[in-house]
Amino acid sequence: MSYFGEHFWGDKNHGFEVLYHCVKQGPVATKELADFIRERANIEETYSKAMAKLSKLASNGTPMGTFAPLWEVFRVSSDKLALCHLELTRKLHDLLKDVLRYGEEQLKTHKKCKEEVLGTVDAVQMLSGVGQLLPKSRENYLSRCMDLERLRRENTSQKEMDKAETKSKKAADSLRRSVDKYNSARADFEIKMLDSALRFQAMEEAHLQHMKALLGSYAHSVEDTHVQIGQVHEEFKQNVENVTVDMLLRKFAESKGTGREKPGPLDFDAYSSAALQEGNNETSPWSQGFPPSRIEPSGATCIC
Amino acid sequence: MSYFGEHFWGDKNHGFEVLYHCVKQGPVATKELADFIRERANIEETYSKAMAKLSKLASNGTPMGTFAPLWEVFRVSSDKLALCHLELTRKLHDLLKDVLRYGEEQLKTHKKCKEEVLGTVDAVQMLSGVGQLLPKSRENYLSRCMDLERLRRENTSQKEMDKAETKSKKAADSLRRSVDKYNSARADFEIKMLDSALRFQAMEEAHLQHMKALLGSYAHSVEDTHVQIGQVHEEFKQNVENVTVDMLLRKFAESKGTGREKPGPLDFDAYSSAALQEGNNETSPWSQGFPPSRIEPSGATCIC
Repeated sequence: MSYFGEHFWGDKNHGFEVLYHCVKQGPVATKELADFIRERANIEETYSKAMAKLSKLASNGTPMGTFAPLWEVFRVSSDKLALCHLELTRKLHDLLKDVLRYGEEQLKTHKKCKEEVLGTVDAVQMLSGVGQLLPKSRENYLSRCMDLERLRRENTSQKEMDKAETKSKKAADSLRRSVDKYNSARADFEIKMLDSALRFQAMEEAHLQHMKALLGSYAHSVEDTHVQIGQVHEEFKQNVENVTVDMLLRKFAESKGTGREKPGPLDFDAYSSAALQEGNNETSPWSQGFPPSRIEPSGATCIC
Repeated sequence: MSYFGEHFWGDKNHGFEVLYHCVKQGPVATKELADFIRERANIEETYSKAMAKLSKLASNGTPMGTFAPLWEVFRVSSDKLALCHLELTRKLHDLLKDVLRYGEEQLKTHKKCKEEVLGTVDAVQMLSGVGQLLPKSRENYLSRCMDLERLRRENTSQKEMDKAETKSKKAADSLRRSVDKYNSARADFEIKMLDSALRFQAMEEAHLQHMKALLGSYAHSVEDTHVQIGQVHEEFKQNVENVTVDMLLRKFAESKGTGREKPGPLDFDAYSSAALQEGNNETSPWSQGFPPSRIEPSGATCIC
């Protein structure tokens, strides 16, 4: 639809100015979109860095105790979230480059357009100029006609009447020329204005198409990252589920365990005769007979 | 499975100390989890504030030009994202309160447990003490027996022999008492150590169950927010799609349009006779005849 070709006529023919002002907003919008994307990229980068810091906090979680293996689950998840947001930052910076590149192209297109519509600027000014002459011309003609009418009523001399009639005819010719000029300027204006309006609309249409493509790319990047983040969340939940309480207790017992053999009771006869045997063999009294674990004293244990 | 009851025996009976140290890590892990959640809440709050700022950036987008209505789509989306992350911040702060409350309960449980295992501490120390006496006692017995053997080989007097035999018997009695004490301490230690190990495991099990419940709540909050964010993204994409290029052009033309009526051509006869008519009626020459739009001059338009 030729919206611009239909809505920008009316009083004082300001339509051209309004449309020209409109297309000048195109590069402004492009610049603002670039600012917006740059800011969003900064936000994602800050978030990514904060997540990397959070991952460090998780990796500093105490390695002692039964809970320790779950810190690894937190660390991995935070690390992956940091990466997702860093990836989005990168994508947004790439998009920003596209926006800036488009902004430069747009300025060239605008310069070209400015040259193409110069004729319309002239036509608008011409119409304005001849339009301003019309009332004067018409007033002059009206005044001459009234003079002639007055002389006619006053039965003035034929000479005076002829003079006034000549003046009136000249005024009529002048008005006719003004009207012709106006009609010619008007026709020229209508053709050129319509041409410019269509040109502006085509330009705006191309601009909006391009901007919407950039918006689509923005939405796509954000959505991609959102899907990845969802996977990280799902993985975190799954990992927490997989690390069962039973597994944690077993893992701790197996890795930190001190031994599965309980200290056995001592038998006096065996213990004492073994000592004698050792004495007779002149070997160390502690070299055999009982495993050391059964007779060595346990270290003192205190609750601290 | 009684992992703790099976893996914490072995040399020197250090198992109790290791287990006691383990359960002491429980409150440490709880505190670290609180720190982690607090930090995550801070990250979400910062992100939320940045998004609110981004929404302002969008609402400051130029209201001129055809692109203007799309800024509103950006503004709404950024605002909603800010709200999602603020909501997550709130949920995490609530969770933090739960974690801190659990930490306090845990300290009470630990204090109670400390009292309950005091008997085991005594048993470990007792076993250690009597274990240290055994070698001395055994060495003494061995030495006396060897004395007796030597005297027997040297055909010493019966009196000396009797004396040495008495000493040897006393040493045997002393060693027997030491062995009995050790066996009694060992039996007591085994019962108490097993009891403490089971107590510690039950405590760790309860602790890990509670921690996993808190982790589940954390994952749930994060996932909830993720779903909401997904809806905001979907809405944004949909809104961008709904605002078509054609709609933007039409909206602009309708709201910023200057008029749909083109300036008409002037007819000299009509224009001049209307002027005469007006003159005869002694009214303003511009009050009727043509709509002012057709004769008033258009304003000068310049490309600036």
